[in-house]
Amino acid sequence: MLDVCLLGTAGMMPLKNRFLTSLYTEYQGSGFLIDCGEGTQVALSYHGLKMSRITYILITHAHADHISGLPGLLLSIGNNGRTAPVTVVYPESAEYCIKALLTVCGELPYEIVLQPTSDSEPHAFNAKEISPDLRIRSMPVSHTVPCVGYSAILNRRPVFIPEKAKALGVPVDKWKELHSGNSVTLDNGKVVTTENVIGSPRKPLKLTYVTDSLPLPEIAALATDSDLFICEGMYGDTSKKKSMNEKGHMLMQDACGLAAAAGVRRLWLTHFSPAVKEPQIYAEELKELFQAVIVPEDGTKIQLK
Amino acid sequence: MLDVCLLGTAGMMPLKNRFLTSLYTEYQGSGFLIDCGEGTQVALSYHGLKMSRITYILITHAHADHISGLPGLLLSIGNNGRTAPVTVVYPESAEYCIKALLTVCGELPYEIVLQPTSDSEPHAFNAKEISPDLRIRSMPVSHTVPCVGYSAILNRRPVFIPEKAKALGVPVDKWKELHSGNSVTLDNGKVVTTENVIGSPRKPLKLTYVTDSLPLPEIAALATDSDLFICEGMYGDTSKKKSMNEKGHMLMQDACGLAAAAGVRRLWLTHFSPAVKEPQIYAEELKELFQAVIVPEDGTKIQLK
Repeated sequence: MLDVCLLGTAGMMPLKNRFLTSLYTEYQGSGFLIDCGEGTQVALSYHGLKMSRITYILITHAHADHISGLPGLLLSIGNNGRTAPVTVVYPESAEYCIKALLTVCGELPYEIVLQPTSDSEPHAFNAKEISPDLRIRSMPVSHTVPCVGYSAILNRRPVFIPEKAKALGVPVDKWKELHSGNSVTLDNGKVVTTENVIGSPRKPLKLTYVTDSLPLPEIAALATDSDLFICEGMYGDTSKKKSMNEKGHMLMQDACGLAAAAGVRRLWLTHFSPAVKEPQIYAEELKELFQAVIVPEDGTKIQLK
Repeated sequence: MLDVCLLGTAGMMPLKNRFLTSLYTEYQGSGFLIDCGEGTQVALSYHGLKMSRITYILITHAHADHISGLPGLLLSIGNNGRTAPVTVVYPESAEYCIKALLTVCGELPYEIVLQPTSDSEPHAFNAKEISPDLRIRSMPVSHTVPCVGYSAILNRRPVFIPEKAKALGVPVDKWKELHSGNSVTLDNGKVVTTENVIGSPRKPLKLTYVTDSLPLPEIAALATDSDLFICEGMYGDTSKKKSMNEKGHMLMQDACGLAAAAGVRRLWLTHFSPAVKEPQIYAEELKELFQAVIVPEDGTKIQLK
């Protein structure tokens, strides 16, 4: 189960009633943040989330509205009592910028692990500090500076079926070991394996986050089968398509097209231009392009199960 | 006349209901900002101020709560249409940090002028891009990193007295030239000087801003005769005096003592600890130490005349 909160929906600059785009996802008491613009620490607190649980910070690209909240957040994570390391992931060419921002922090009461990801090809790693079952993928997208999209995939073990264990005569105190993947030898010498007591394989939970990019077809491939796809929709006015795409951005309609191609379960739009005062006015017409789209407010939450 | 707005009153970290400490002052359509923590651009907009008028940014010291809003603000100043240069003033040893933050901005549509000030001794300059009559002084204070306090002094020309000009027979179309400092020769050959038509000298307007420092006696000297003294008061609980002073901070009571010693006209406290939920509860008892103290809310404004 993943607890997801879209902390803000603004692009370019924070507004007095709209935080910058950033996503927080928590699994079993430990979480990852994607993007950290100016004010993200305030948004976390505003939406009732615990900064000290942030274990990974994934940065899409080195533009101020996606990274300049980093020094303040890292300091506040420390002031909130964290002592375990925090891993910061970013496109490799953004390293100068990440290091520049870290100079503002001075000494922190925990270790920062810098983990660059590729600017030029897809990459994946296990976010093992959160869970060995959580895998993060990054994929280069197309913006005015190197930029990546991220997917988080939570592999879920098949459920344990007590009736099967009982029928095979496995005592209750062995059930946990059996479900964790180990075989168990019964008093009668019979060996019971995990496969004997579990249900059928379960579909992983998948979350995809892409912002500040042309609507590349590769994004649909990254987002395929996502339970939730969070994607930039800078404007809803289709007359702006050409100029936006030229600037490495996409429209709400572009995002709907990608969501449909990817077959995602839900689409949340974000990164609205400051010029778009009421992004929600586009919600109805967008449903004709992709039924499961919402134009969310800051702080929209969901529990993916 | 100086239009002053205290944008925020928080110290250490921005809160959901309290912006970080920062001061904006405007004179004849052009202004200076002191300190720029995370969210200062939002506070400017929240309090109805025009970012594009910011001509000087004065930084007290290189701690995140005083500088990490710089990249976002500089970008937004550009997005708000400014093309004239912006001068950034800071303690000289903070240069690495200022330059690091500038790397996050990329290219701006106006020039940034870097103007370090001394870490170790008082310094002064004319803020001529705002007005030749506006002088800024900086003075080192005592914090955990090099930190300076600032005074802004607006020299005011004596008022023009129309009755005197009339009595001397100066035609109305020569009044402006006469008041600007030039002599005027009348048709009868008589020379009239500025001194002939003005009133007595006027006291300059003075504003002093000090935060993140021990309550050094030198601060009272910097603030002497200020019309408004804005000073840190991290806590109002006097049992914290020793620990706060050791960390290079002062209490509200320390600030009142400095204000009294400096003979200022008004004292505004700021930079409240996040642990101080209601700084206003100290207001009454502080008046016994310094009558003209206020414990301001974010966005408190005054017009100094």
